[in-house]
Amino acid sequence: MAGNTFGRLFRVTTFGESHGRGVGAVVDGVPPGIPLPVEYIQRELDRRRPGQSAVTSRRREPDTVQILSGLFEGKTTGTPLMLFIANEEYRSSDYENLKDIYRPGHADYTYEMKYGLRDWRGSGRSSGRETAARVAAGAVAGRILELSGVEVVGYTLEIGGVRAEAVHPVRTESVEKNAVRSPDEERAKEMIRRIEEAKAAGDSLGGIVEVVVRGVPAGAGDPVFDKLEALMAHAVMSIGGVRGFEIGAGFGSARMTGSHFNDSFIVEKGNIRSETNNAGGVLGGIATGEDILFRAAVRPPASIGKEQKTVNRKKESAAVRIGGRHDPCIVPRIVPVVEAMARIVLLDCMLVQKAQKPGGIDTESG
Amino acid sequence: MAGNTFGRLFRVTTFGESHGRGVGAVVDGVPPGIPLPVEYIQRELDRRRPGQSAVTSRRREPDTVQILSGLFEGKTTGTPLMLFIANEEYRSSDYENLKDIYRPGHADYTYEMKYGLRDWRGSGRSSGRETAARVAAGAVAGRILELSGVEVVGYTLEIGGVRAEAVHPVRTESVEKNAVRSPDEERAKEMIRRIEEAKAAGDSLGGIVEVVVRGVPAGAGDPVFDKLEALMAHAVMSIGGVRGFEIGAGFGSARMTGSHFNDSFIVEKGNIRSETNNAGGVLGGIATGEDILFRAAVRPPASIGKEQKTVNRKKESAAVRIGGRHDPCIVPRIVPVVEAMARIVLLDCMLVQKAQKPGGIDTESG
Amino acid sequence: MAGNTFGRLFRVTTFGESHGRGVGAVVDGVPPGIPLPVEYIQRELDRRRPGQSAVTSRRREPDTVQILSGLFEGKTTGTPLMLFIANEEYRSSDYENLKDIYRPGHADYTYEMKYGLRDWRGSGRSSGRETAARVAAGAVAGRILELSGVEVVGYTLEIGGVRAEAVHPVRTESVEKNAVRSPDEERAKEMIRRIEEAKAAGDSLGGIVEVVVRGVPAGAGDPVFDKLEALMAHAVMSIGGVRGFEIGAGFGSARMTGSHFNDSFIVEKGNIRSETNNAGGVLGGIATGEDILFRAAVRPPASIGKEQKTVNRKKESAAVRIGGRHDPCIVPRIVPVVEAMARIVLLDCMLVQKAQKPGGIDTESG
Amino acid sequence: MAGNTFGRLFRVTTFGESHGRGVGAVVDGVPPGIPLPVEYIQRELDRRRPGQSAVTSRRREPDTVQILSGLFEGKTTGTPLMLFIANEEYRSSDYENLKDIYRPGHADYTYEMKYGLRDWRGSGRSSGRETAARVAAGAVAGRILELSGVEVVGYTLEIGGVRAEAVHPVRTESVEKNAVRSPDEERAKEMIRRIEEAKAAGDSLGGIVEVVVRGVPAGAGDPVFDKLEALMAHAVMSIGGVRGFEIGAGFGSARMTGSHFNDSFIVEKGNIRSETNNAGGVLGGIATGEDILFRAAVRPPASIGKEQKTVNRKKESAAVRIGGRHDPCIVPRIVPVVEAMARIVLLDCMLVQKAQKPGGIDTESG
Repeated sequence: MAGNTFGRLFRVTTFGESHGRGVGAVVDGVPPGIPLPVEYIQRELDRRRPGQSAVTSRRREPDTVQILSGLFEGKTTGTPLMLFIANEEYRSSDYENLKDIYRPGHADYTYEMKYGLRDWRGSGRSSGRETAARVAAGAVAGRILELSGVEVVGYTLEIGGVRAEAVHPVRTESVEKNAVRSPDEERAKEMIRRIEEAKAAGDSLGGIVEVVVRGVPAGAGDPVFDKLEALMAHAVMSIGGVRGFEIGAGFGSARMTGSHFNDSFIVEKGNIRSETNNAGGVLGGIATGEDILFRAAVRPPASIGKEQKTVNRKKESAAVRIGGRHDPCIVPRIVPVVEAMARIVLLDCMLVQKAQKPGGIDTESG
Repeated sequence: MAGNTFGRLFRVTTFGESHGRGVGAVVDGVPPGIPLPVEYIQRELDRRRPGQSAVTSRRREPDTVQILSGLFEGKTTGTPLMLFIANEEYRSSDYENLKDIYRPGHADYTYEMKYGLRDWRGSGRSSGRETAARVAAGAVAGRILELSGVEVVGYTLEIGGVRAEAVHPVRTESVEKNAVRSPDEERAKEMIRRIEEAKAAGDSLGGIVEVVVRGVPAGAGDPVFDKLEALMAHAVMSIGGVRGFEIGAGFGSARMTGSHFNDSFIVEKGNIRSETNNAGGVLGGIATGEDILFRAAVRPPASIGKEQKTVNRKKESAAVRIGGRHDPCIVPRIVPVVEAMARIVLLDCMLVQKAQKPGGIDTESG
Repeated sequence: MAGNTFGRLFRVTTFGESHGRGVGAVVDGVPPGIPLPVEYIQRELDRRRPGQSAVTSRRREPDTVQILSGLFEGKTTGTPLMLFIANEEYRSSDYENLKDIYRPGHADYTYEMKYGLRDWRGSGRSSGRETAARVAAGAVAGRILELSGVEVVGYTLEIGGVRAEAVHPVRTESVEKNAVRSPDEERAKEMIRRIEEAKAAGDSLGGIVEVVVRGVPAGAGDPVFDKLEALMAHAVMSIGGVRGFEIGAGFGSARMTGSHFNDSFIVEKGNIRSETNNAGGVLGGIATGEDILFRAAVRPPASIGKEQKTVNRKKESAAVRIGGRHDPCIVPRIVPVVEAMARIVLLDCMLVQKAQKPGGIDTESG
Repeated sequence: MAGNTFGRLFRVTTFGESHGRGVGAVVDGVPPGIPLPVEYIQRELDRRRPGQSAVTSRRREPDTVQILSGLFEGKTTGTPLMLFIANEEYRSSDYENLKDIYRPGHADYTYEMKYGLRDWRGSGRSSGRETAARVAAGAVAGRILELSGVEVVGYTLEIGGVRAEAVHPVRTESVEKNAVRSPDEERAKEMIRRIEEAKAAGDSLGGIVEVVVRGVPAGAGDPVFDKLEALMAHAVMSIGGVRGFEIGAGFGSARMTGSHFNDSFIVEKGNIRSETNNAGGVLGGIATGEDILFRAAVRPPASIGKEQKTVNRKKESAAVRIGGRHDPCIVPRIVPVVEAMARIVLLDCMLVQKAQKPGGIDTESG
């Protein structure tokens, strides 16, 4: 209700500020009996953490996750997993000079309008650091999806106007080969160049993330208000910096005719399939069994070295330059965050569908 | 949980099928003591109903709303409003020949995969008729917002590739002047021409709806998972046919630099304002006090007269032409639906903020 | 959030006032493909309606239910069921003289404190008539439970201090043999006598309802906050007039020792069973597989013919006698309401358990 | 959904097992700007912890709470509070011999039926240790209520059949004077004697906790399903060991007549009051402004030294004696837990009422 919980049957509640004691998530509704090595979660966090490459922030945050509850003898017990990531760097002094200033593009002003006060150390709760908790929780969902054969692959489609020609099917392995997480090796080099230029200019760049999901069975997803794409849009648009979401043909469908947009059904090896996939894997909010394909638009980071005009708490004009080790482009590091949110949504939909499947309830114990 | 409820403190639950007894909504969490004439709701429904102009379906559905509970002496009582819209046309015989066919672009196949059966009369629950309940519920929210000075104006930005040059500020009056609900009179004529061409060809067109919201105070909206734009994306993407959502600069922000994207704060007449509004009225998920501006991409309608290839329930190839009086372009009629969902989200956020405002709770009775 | 919705996966939203157009429920999360004759629901409503016997109100409310959505060819479709019960008697003139008076034991005063106004016609939303919607929704749950072999039997244990010696196992058939719904024929006569005496004196009586549930499998129910007995207490205590709830040995367990209270586990025909059932069928909030047994204390109805002292809206002293055809004892008519709420809770718990069962998710379509 | 979250606007999510790394709570929806010293929370935990007196378990668990998020410069920020209580004793070896045995009165069997496995170290998630998280979260609610003038006082009404003659008004100070937390000094001595006898016999005792709430304004609480007493029953019945709940006259009302049960309204010093308070401070689910008074029945603890008959996982008969330092009576330590749950419910109801108060929404920023 206050915004820190997401999901229905698989439910994630996060907490923590960028310069407090740490960030984390309580993950409830985890199916029991699932082997869950902590390394599995750590691996995803490592993909999100700063300092992983030349194009990301040079802050060193090891982001080590601890599982403080819900696991017994290496398996989930069905009770809540508590995932905690301690903050190791506390240089809140970096922020002393910003505490009375409303940084452009940041949530300083709105948090103060909402709450009457704000934790000004490093953006507090509105920091991108909050997404570490999402990634940890998403890894739990990912583990269960993976065991069920569902694969979620995110990658950079575009940075600073340079667009990848993604050669489908994109696999995680090919994505991880370069610092920008783009499956197009050539364009990746160009993207990196653009990021370096922006960084040198004290500026920042945006881009587009694309995600493909394979293996979600037809029938998952709900009607009306909780259509799969609506939940996915909610999940993805809730990531700081995401400004747009589209599924399948997306905004492009606005310029198509119905005869081109509609995906014909065909029978292939005895299964009903779609000949094309403009729908992006959902019809009426429910999975068709085809790949689910969506994109998220990511704005350039708000923290830039260039001088910007703004005001302070006393409503006086002010100029601000954001020092520190900020990301000139958040796209490569947001890829695992978008994947995480997608996994949370998909597992939740599949659990809801497990409950609602035809056949009623069963009365066998256990 | 099963998808038919939306909202937190202002909560809408809808029901009904296109060819059942009717559709409707239970609206809970309505502030008490609000004068609510039934005509106010009816006026919004009239904007959505088919048959209102030459470019929409010629079906005649008067869509008369009845308020069956929650109103006393013309005012809301704080108890649930039950809004019911009886179905008057029951020509389910139109659909007899489609009952074993999976129409391309429709939810026939996915509903059957999900539920094991489907109400094949006119798309059942997945019909666009379901949105009448949204519009009715949204009108209730709109009434309360209007009394508080919050204005929500939706309009057609683009149809079939023809884009309006919207002259801001757009007002409802100018939007209602033409059949496509576009504030650009010249382009509206061109849009109408395109729709007529598509219709003649047995085809359909998509487009883009834009919404501007004025008067939401800074501080409304929530952090992390329930950011205002995330709830709005959820709401808008849950409307059948919407394939993309973007706020402020949206997908365009992916190609901007931070120094151009960031909106500088300034002081104007003693108030803190944003010099530009690339953020679309939200920072960190919370309203800045500027206009909230978002867009929704609408695909071309699935029901077209042209012959399409598909399969039937026996997994045999089939050809299908959808007869009947379908909309060649749903954009003009979806405008009030998008507005309705926006109003539901905004009122909900403002009620949540009312509860969470600094100052704790008060202990005065009543 | 505003109090008119109950349940998680099986979710009931009710609406309506005693002297408005009608009352009803939207039931969401109904498993698809269940044959549901309207007569099945009507039968339960007939057990609740006034005028069914000499000891209940003589008001004639036929309480005919209509299913306005969610059913197709006699089966549930998985989409929301809308159950509507029109009000047929509108004698709100009966209440004109009470509109400025706060009746003792009624919610007149508190509704006005909460909402700033109230629908004074026959108690409005706080009327017992609201429970008709619960019974209708509970019948839907009951239908599904019945098909799964789960049986819920409620009966009158005590009225006006006369306590039945219930001969277990109690079956619905034996309960329906007398006007007070008590399985003890002899005591039932005495209960009826007491009710008639109270009625003649312009007074009213309370009592206790007991419910036994058979066939819930071990494992249903949730830990911590959503223990089966906690959800059941919530559900049952939400019925107007219920003032206490206990499960198994209940308040009696406060005077037992651990060695007597603990139910020993035994093996019977290869199954683990409890030798006694002081726990009432739940341990740690989760069903043991034994009968679930609980009791609800019901206060005497507030509407009595005797003169009572009170105040009016102007804070002046006043005297009030409640005329009209009120129940001198609500216990016999509350039995089906308690059963209904029990069924809603149990089906909900079983659906949640269906989703959370070990074995993860499956990826087969449909 | 999986049972570990409670509340609507003030929402508590708990986690942790008795012999894992710790237990804790994420508290969301905390009003911002509230001074919250950690000592305030610690004080409540000290009232719950074992080893505090001769009649409780001699286990030494310091139960030190840490606030890991949501606090800045000593004040709440409106973002989630993370309260963590590390487990210091890990003697899970105590439980090795019990890991294949289903202890009578414990949740061993039901957890295994539900989840397919269980954390057998010290009852795992079903341990009473879970309630430490409730007490910590409840202290946060208590802090806010206290600042608003709402007081919640719980005390032991009965232990082992010895009933206190509580001299109202009961205050926390008088309750804390003795080891059993009973306001009746004389009977407290007798209660202590009974507990010592039970302990010596390797047995345990139950009892009754009573709670009085002062200062909740008329109008708090919701109608129909979320009546204040229904939420309270849910909250209190969710505490392990509570077997019954009653409000006001409770089960006693079943034997009253309406003319005695109904509380007459009177005017006192210009305010509308109830002459008696059989209703226990609520009518129609909404607070009357009178004291809210309720009772909870607490069963004798399941862990006793006496030999008990049971079965093991192989369905073989077994005998079990529970060694270790268990409470012979949990009533004195459950008092702060019941208070905590009451505070959570009350604050939640008051926040919901803050949102829903007549007067609509306001559009002032901040």
